[in-house]
Amino acid sequence: MPQLALLYGRAWAALFGQLRRPPRAVCIQMVHSRSQGQSFLQVAEAVLTSQQKPHQEKSNFIIKTPKGTRDLSPQQMVVREKILDMVVSCFKRHGAKGLDTPAFELKEMLTEKYGEDSGLIYDLKDQGGELLSLRYDLTVPFARYLAMNKLKKMKRYHVGKVWRRESPTIVQGRYREFCQCDFDIAGQFDPMIPDAECLKIICEILSGLQLGDFLIKVNDRRILDGMFAVCGVPESKFHAICSSIDKLDKISWKDVRHEMVAKKGLAPEVADQIGDYVQCHGGVSLVEQMFQDPRLSQNKQALEGLGDLKLLFEYLTLFGIAEKISFDLSLARGLDYYTGVIYEAVLLQTPAQAEEEPLNVGSVAAGGRYDGLVGMFDPKGHKVPCVGLSIGVERIFSIVEQRMKTFGEKVRTTETQVFVATPQKNFLQERLKLIAELWDAGIKAELLYKNNPKLLTQLHYCENTGIPLVVIIGEQELKEGVIKLRLVASREEVAIKRENLVAEIQKRLSES
Amino acid sequence: MPQLALLYGRAWAALFGQLRRPPRAVCIQMVHSRSQGQSFLQVAEAVLTSQQKPHQEKSNFIIKTPKGTRDLSPQQMVVREKILDMVVSCFKRHGAKGLDTPAFELKEMLTEKYGEDSGLIYDLKDQGGELLSLRYDLTVPFARYLAMNKLKKMKRYHVGKVWRRESPTIVQGRYREFCQCDFDIAGQFDPMIPDAECLKIICEILSGLQLGDFLIKVNDRRILDGMFAVCGVPESKFHAICSSIDKLDKISWKDVRHEMVAKKGLAPEVADQIGDYVQCHGGVSLVEQMFQDPRLSQNKQALEGLGDLKLLFEYLTLFGIAEKISFDLSLARGLDYYTGVIYEAVLLQTPAQAEEEPLNVGSVAAGGRYDGLVGMFDPKGHKVPCVGLSIGVERIFSIVEQRMKTFGEKVRTTETQVFVATPQKNFLQERLKLIAELWDAGIKAELLYKNNPKLLTQLHYCENTGIPLVVIIGEQELKEGVIKLRLVASREEVAIKRENLVAEIQKRLSES
Repeated sequence: MPQLALLYGRAWAALFGQLRRPPRAVCIQMVHSRSQGQSFLQVAEAVLTSQQKPHQEKSNFIIKTPKGTRDLSPQQMVVREKILDMVVSCFKRHGAKGLDTPAFELKEMLTEKYGEDSGLIYDLKDQGGELLSLRYDLTVPFARYLAMNKLKKMKRYHVGKVWRRESPTIVQGRYREFCQCDFDIAGQFDPMIPDAECLKIICEILSGLQLGDFLIKVNDRRILDGMFAVCGVPESKFHAICSSIDKLDKISWKDVRHEMVAKKGLAPEVADQIGDYVQCHGGVSLVEQMFQDPRLSQNKQALEGLGDLKLLFEYLTLFGIAEKISFDLSLARGLDYYTGVIYEAVLLQTPAQAEEEPLNVGSVAAGGRYDGLVGMFDPKGHKVPCVGLSIGVERIFSIVEQRMKTFGEKVRTTETQVFVATPQKNFLQERLKLIAELWDAGIKAELLYKNNPKLLTQLHYCENTGIPLVVIIGEQELKEGVIKLRLVASREEVAIKRENLVAEIQKRLSES
Repeated sequence: MPQLALLYGRAWAALFGQLRRPPRAVCIQMVHSRSQGQSFLQVAEAVLTSQQKPHQEKSNFIIKTPKGTRDLSPQQMVVREKILDMVVSCFKRHGAKGLDTPAFELKEMLTEKYGEDSGLIYDLKDQGGELLSLRYDLTVPFARYLAMNKLKKMKRYHVGKVWRRESPTIVQGRYREFCQCDFDIAGQFDPMIPDAECLKIICEILSGLQLGDFLIKVNDRRILDGMFAVCGVPESKFHAICSSIDKLDKISWKDVRHEMVAKKGLAPEVADQIGDYVQCHGGVSLVEQMFQDPRLSQNKQALEGLGDLKLLFEYLTLFGIAEKISFDLSLARGLDYYTGVIYEAVLLQTPAQAEEEPLNVGSVAAGGRYDGLVGMFDPKGHKVPCVGLSIGVERIFSIVEQRMKTFGEKVRTTETQVFVATPQKNFLQERLKLIAELWDAGIKAELLYKNNPKLLTQLHYCENTGIPLVVIIGEQELKEGVIKLRLVASREEVAIKRENLVAEIQKRLSES
């Protein structure tokens, strides 16, 4: 595995180099932060109150984001970007190209793709013109793209938001708007090689993010269908029963059985036979065992699925990840479009230390083979076999966020390297000239937007926001043609010739 | 200016290091590409046809993206990512934090913010629950975020899609779904310092992208309002007349005048007085001239605006960008929420060389001050002054794309460093073990998903996709405990001990 950094706990700051000061300096910084924050607010309030118009009538107006959605604060954005960078770099390591598709599709593109979940699609209002829906995943748009461009093969990744009108249970990291990171391989290839690579990618990402131990459950839609057939499920009910089985990770077998019998009209004895199968899970030996199963072994579809799983395990062993994989007959995956191997990664334990609250995050990655989806878009039904995976980054964000909260972790939300300060009044002009020089040299720099800020206010700003260097210009410096360079951490100050300033700063930044 | 690379023309490939082979190798590669592409397609077709189900009935089903939207192909994604990286790195250089908001907002959040453009907002269908609309820009969500979190100051950037139901004229780079890159400074500060920084940022980005010469038109809403007042426009018509003036960069004064008089009921002599003013544009001397204007100088609002512009020009001179700025009384900006300085950057000439077709891209960046917007969300009307800018990246993409087309530029769409190949049959297992080793070491690697690919097919794949290194394993190598490393460009081959392979590849990649 590449040395991807830890993403949580005390290690966070060091790993991403966001916070390089020793603990004592951090304490000072936080105290300053509080005291300065208050005085800033007081000033701002005073200014605002003096400007405020006579009280305007407002209705009972609640400012909020839509149900099931949220803003990402700068702190959250830093965490998100680091995680997405790692995921994308893994996708690129496996040779994937980028792709982007519109947030909405023609409504008809999404119909008959998602089974029972179709009711969760957001439609746009008919404002004249086409009927549109927000995309529900990144897989159907990918299949539409392949069919539209008559592409027979492609390995692509796509990071983007999708929208689902689910009852949001935000505490578990489930939203109505959420980010997906998808990797898919389209094309007619020899069996199970791309499928094995998809599982390898999930392993690399979950190991790399160090979320704790995990397991990838694997099954095959053909084994499920074979199982349904030998148990006596009518073929017309396969999809419906599959959807029920899919709930086994959330509700008990008793409740799933009740749904199948009472709501979906399955005979109780058929349900019980399914019940016997879905309790089975294990490694490659379970595949062998199912080959011997007197009923499954009579079913052509099931045998095809088992044959492919056997080959898959062979490749997974070569990749060194077979012990992370569990053949699990209860895994069903809700979406209609899967046709072969399916998989779902779950964290085996909450990644919590003893003092952390347990966090139920459910599956953190999933996917499977969908050989018929592209053909649904093609006028002649030409098929392009596909297999892919989706990383549940929202749930991963939840875990990392909670860890950081537990450890009281602080993250820099800006990357500013240099602050331009002055101890004197009427030095705005010099500060502006100086900072333009830094920007033009590519140096990340800030100043306070005040004509005459206090020096202490300026230095506090640096400590609060983690800016490592301050350049100070005043009358003395101007006279001598120098600039004072201050190292925030050590409070050391050195005078540098004005004309050497940029070079000196670049030297120090490249060394640090 | 930081040395941001050229983004187009022949320089493109060299700049981004996507294509390092000499021209001859490129030619060979393209020939291979064609011949191999065909044979691949033929094979794929044969396989697919044999698999194809009996012809399925399909309605007259056209596969397309919604009107005014498009997919971004891997080639386009590479261009887009490079441009966005440059824009974001400039925003970070100026100390901005990242922020993300949902794609849709409560419908009421967007009402009364966009004036005549409100009809272009996409509403979501009422499916029970809240009434929602897709965001129309990133500015209103930012203001909503500030008010919701009671933030009095923030410097943030936001890169995201927005949606507008405009009549799409895609040829000019106008879409109904498009990406915006926004930078905004919220807070009560001394006048014109943040405003000047916004203009500096626009200059840095447009210079850095080397799109050719550009000009930033500047005006002030208070000067416009003052102008309307002294010309005799009734106050109730200010917004409507402002919207008409905003069209001056697209339609002639004659047509704008007709709209004002015939559609908006303005007296013809009032329109003519406005006509005299909106012809004026120039540098800081025009600001001085307007201070002397017998009518404008009687208007308090206009004087405030002129005073601020004078100060702004002083700061722009210190930043070294005053010659890029033109005070232009015809600049109005369509959106309702601006209250002070407004600006819009236009390319002065098409960036085309003689042989290129001219490309009308209109404005490539714009923004202004909106001191009242946050207050519209606050129950008590508390204001937070804001100023910001938006980069029109879609139009910039159009320019760069057209240039690349003109020059027949080729861009690598993957980053794969090493290809794992074999000259013999039955070497899939060895290839899989080898590639897993590379992936685990963080090396970007690919292989063909075939049990027994031909060596030539494998080598062609590397040349077609620009992979620089091939590791080859066969019977001979397996026996001797070595791997053959082939340099695609020079076709040189060296034998390396199997256990040293990863280290050797890492060494070569770090050197290249």
